Order: sequence, then structure tokens, then C-alpha cells
Amino acid sequence: MASQMLDEILSIPAVVERQNAEVGRIYREIGRRLRAADPRAAISNARGSSDHAATYLKYLLEITIGLPLASVGPSVASIYGGNLRLAGQLCITISQSGASTDLVMLQQAAARDGALTLALVNEVESPVARQAKLLAPLHAGPERAVAATKTFVASLVAAATIIAAWSEDDALLSAIEALPNPLQAAVTLDWSPALAAVSAASSIFTVSRGPGLAVAAEAALKFKESCRLHAEPFSAAELRHGPIALPGPDFAALLFVPRDQGRASMAEAEAALRGTGAAVFRCDVEGGDLPVVAAPHPLLDPICQIASFYRFVEEVARERGLDPDRPPNLSKVTVTQ
Amino acid sequence: MASQMLDEILSIPAVVERQNAEVGRIYREIGRRLRAADPRAAISNARGSSDHAATYLKYLLEITIGLPLASVGPSVASIYGGNLRLAGQLCITISQSGASTDLVMLQQAAARDGALTLALVNEVESPVARQAKLLAPLHAGPERAVAATKTFVASLVAAATIIAAWSEDDALLSAIEALPNPLQAAVTLDWSPALAAVSAASSIFTVSRGPGLAVAAEAALKFKESCRLHAEPFSAAELRHGPIALPGPDFAALLFVPRDQGRASMAEAEAALRGTGAAVFRCDVEGGDLPVVAAPHPLLDPICQIASFYRFVEEVARERGLDPDRPPNLSKVTVTQ
Repeated sequence: MASQMLDEILSIPAVVERQNAEVGRIYREIGRRLRAADPRAAISNARGSSDHAATYLKYLLEITIGLPLASVGPSVASIYGGNLRLAGQLCITISQSGASTDLVMLQQAAARDGALTLALVNEVESPVARQAKLLAPLHAGPERAVAATKTFVASLVAAATIIAAWSEDDALLSAIEALPNPLQAAVTLDWSPALAAVSAASSIFTVSRGPGLAVAAEAALKFKESCRLHAEPFSAAELRHGPIALPGPDFAALLFVPRDQGRASMAEAEAALRGTGAAVFRCDVEGGDLPVVAAPHPLLDPICQIASFYRFVEEVARERGLDPDRPPNLSKVTVTQ
Repeated sequence: MASQMLDEILSIPAVVERQNAEVGRIYREIGRRLRAADPRAAISNARGSSDHAATYLKYLLEITIGLPLASVGPSVASIYGGNLRLAGQLCITISQSGASTDLVMLQQAAARDGALTLALVNEVESPVARQAKLLAPLHAGPERAVAATKTFVASLVAAATIIAAWSEDDALLSAIEALPNPLQAAVTLDWSPALAAVSAASSIFTVSRGPGLAVAAEAALKFKESCRLHAEPFSAAELRHGPIALPGPDFAALLFVPRDQGRASMAEAEAALRGTGAAVFRCDVEGGDLPVVAAPHPLLDPICQIASFYRFVEEVARERGLDPDRPPNLSKVTVTQ
């Protein structure tokens, strides 16, 4: 019997196609307005999968616009009551439900402190969406599975479109338009060569570099919440600053390899991980252990990688005897303060 | 036989006393200069334990000065060649050795892009130290153990002093002067009630909120590198956005509880973790499962907590049959690009 989670994963190509057709122009207009506003710095306000989408946005912003993005713990506003000095800055909130109290409070504090507020939200009838100066509706349709999948991908597509318009990168804009077809291929790829080793591992490392770190973080969270597998994400460079001491033959590692300048450090990380005896799986458009689809632009590769991973992790959950739609101890809307 | 790591842990109170006496005025002068410079935003440039020190500095900066700090992956400069727009901003590099190529490259890029550069470095005869506009020597003496301990504490003390002078917080400045005595007590505390459960756990969560997140992250790294225990740090609020699905009776959790407004969410996290059957240990100056020393100021509590934790983790390593001075696969200076 198919899970709700699988249904939503399989809907990802259609979600992105509808996004491009129906709200893509809103994202592009936001990009143009941000180009005109020319903020001096940016903060993000997000939790869980949405915080991983913020990581993707952070790398795109830093690499293409040169603007550093600070991930601010919502507690700075909700708990510590800090007054941030954000005049001329941009505050980006990312949320599926747009309802979590701490996100609302940080967004309000940022507006009060002089920031321009931008929200990427799926539920447009929500406090975060209503109060944002600029609203990018994710337009992913209702998400019923507890584990976010299609809203995560929709957040990445919205982020990439906004950044492409902001930096006037027509190649990236065209590539986003062309994304539904490769995504259709991505959600049908067969990662079963990794199923036994990953399902049996005592712990998992997910590794990437640059924008791919967003999907390494998202994959690790999904292993935890859907499969009860302790997975932790690392930058390929960070691995050797301590964490490489940990893995052994009972470990697995998934490497989300970028096509760009990060490849060399990924090869070093792979060699170090293989040296520990861990079961290592390289996801690499240029040939690896698991098939992945090349996106129409290298900056979009993480979007195709996570679509294939979602298909896989739903299988791992069932292989481990879990119901992907009922992760223990969790509910859909998480309200934290 | 005592380990080099234990020797360095036991030297922490003396290191802080010497810091205050011999370089405290340099930190205070840097704080005053930053107050005058009034940067509009800040980025950090660090890896491993030093990156956790940057997390502490980030919360202090955001709570007390209201300035968001973006943790920029050194790869943005070293790998992606991004041109950051950092005029009027502050770039803070934290490093024990001051020698890692990627840190040097990001610091150089930041200076070229218009940022004021500040470095907290132990090795003052290093590229990072020599090239920084403002240099805060950590003055911790040579660190020989592979696992950083005294340089991490020295980074936190330097960060707190700079922020206290920047915000003209005389109470915090006095509290830092008074820190060596409580630290002397902290490094002798007995956490053996947690030794058996933690040493036998299959996985560990370390949890805190606000500035304490820095020590949760540092503790998790030490469990990985010195004890081959898979520990992962979380914000108390982030736990319920997925990770709480993971723990069960074979897990342990260490909670670094702050005295401040973050207490309420820590109590919720504690209840959720106890509900999973995990062995939960609360480190809390107001009474918990493990003794901790109250620092002379709540913002300094994490410094006393990590000192006690270091004493404990060295014992856990030996309990697990490992040599604390020889973590597998690691060397002292990590050069990454």
C-alpha cells in the first residue's frame, strides 16, 4: 500500500510545474524588487526542513549576490527579547504552515527593527504569510504527510527563482523552467543497491559541500524522523575536524557530490570514509554508486538529488518496519516558542 | 596514567587567570574599537571547536549588541570564489593554529571586500594572526592534545570580554575577572553518575538553547572524536521538528540548561526525551542530575559547564578503552581547502 509520503514525493514534478506556471512570476518580481532594494545583509528565520531550505538559499545568496545570510535562532526574539539592528537588511522566513509562534515573533521583531520581510510559506492564510512585506507562496498544495517533502522542494525552487531574478541570471531562470522533466526521472530512480546496507547501519553520515549541504542536512533529518536511523550531516571539509574519528564498518555514508569546485574535497572525504570501513554511496551525476539525474543547471542538482533520496528514504522506512506516515512522537504542525 | 588531554583540562583555570591578567586589556581595547567602528553586520570564519566558539560569540552579539552574525562556509571564498559584499561589516576568524588555508582565504577575501577583520587565534605567529586587522591572542599556551579543550575555553573568554567591552557591560566584565575560581571548582566535579549509561549508549543527543548551544555542539564533537560515540547537538526547540522521533531506551541525552529565559523550553525538551526511555542527564546550576558550578554571570555558565564536561568526556573515552590523546584518523592541525 502506497504511503501518503510516497504520493507526495511522486507529485513533486507536477508541483514544480504548477509553481513555475502559476507563481513563478511572483518569485521573479520579488527577485527584481530585492535587486532594487539592495539589502546590505540578510537573516533567515526557519526550523526543521525549512531551515535546510534556508541553507540552500544562503549558499545561493553568498555565491551569486555576495550577501552573507545569518541564520538567527528564533529564540533571540521569542526568548531573549533581543533588539536586532536590522535597518537595510532582509529577513527571510521559510515555513510550511506559517504558524509557529517563534517564527512569527522573530519576523515581527525584524520588521520592527527595520528589516524588509520576505516569507516563503505554503499556507498563505497564516500569520507569517499575512504579515510579510513580500510573500512567495510555495503553492505546493496541502501537505498531509508528517515528513515534509514536496514543500521542501518547492522552497528550493522558490529560492532559486528569486535569486536568479535578483542576479539577472537568465541561464538559471531557463533551467528552473526546464526542471519538471528531470525531476520526473529523479523520483523514479532505483537506489535499492544501498537499501540493505543503509537499513542495517548503526549510524549514517550524509556529506556534501556548498549548496548541496542543504540536502545533506535534509536527508539526515529524514533518516532520523522516518527511519529512526541516527544520521548526521557534515560539510566535506568539516569531517576531518573531528567527526572522521567516529565511523567504522557498521556505518553508512551518503555523499551528495556537486558538479562544481567542491568535487575535489568530496573525493578526499570519500577516501577518508572508505578508509574507516563504512559502506559509502556516492550520488554523483558524473558516475557514482547510486544514479542521479543531472539538473539543467549545476546549482539545481541538489533539487534532483533530494527527489531521488526521498523515494529511497521512504523505502528504507518500510524496510525497517516503520510506517512512513506515522513517525513516532511527531505531529504535522510544530508550534515552538 | 594521566592523559595530555586531562592535563590541559586541569590547566583551564590557570589559562583563564593568565588571559585576564596578560591579554584581557587587549580584548577590552578591541571591544571599544568595535563599538566605535559600529559594524552593520558580521560574519564568522571557523571550523570544528572554533566554529562552536563562533556560535557562542554569535548569540552574545545578537542578544547584547543586536548584530546578526552569519557563519560563512570558508568554501564560499576558497572553493566558489564568491565576492562577498562586506563593506562596513566585521569578519571574525577563530582558530587554534591560524594555519588552515580555507580560513586564510576567506579572511583575505573579506578584507578585500571591505570588512574589518578580527582574529581570535592561539598561534600568533600564523597567517591568520599576522593578516588580521585586530588580533585577540588566545594566550592559552601550546595545546598538544588532538582534542581542543583549553583553546576552546580561551576562545569563549576572549569572545565574552570583547562583547562585554563593546556593550559597556561592567557587570559582565567583572564576572569574567572572577571566573578562575568557579572554573577551578568546575574541573573537579564528579559526573560519574552518568558514566555507565553514557559509555554504553548507542547514540547521544546534547541539548541546549541560546548561548549554551555552543557547548552542546562542542560536547557532541568531543563524544565523536574522543569516545567514538555518535552524539549530535540540538536546540531544545529544534528537537520537536523531527529529531525527537529517533531516541529510545538505548539513547542518552545531556541537557545543558541555561538560567535564563530558555529554561521553559528545556523543561519541555527534557520531558519529551524522558518519554522516549532515553537516559537523560540535566546539567543545571539550579539542581539537576549532574553537578555544575554557577558562573559569576548567566552568560558565562556555558564556560563552567564545558569545563566539567571535558573532565567527564576524558573519563568516558578511557571507560570505552580509548586513548584520549590518540583519537582515530585525526591530527592536530587540520588543513582544509
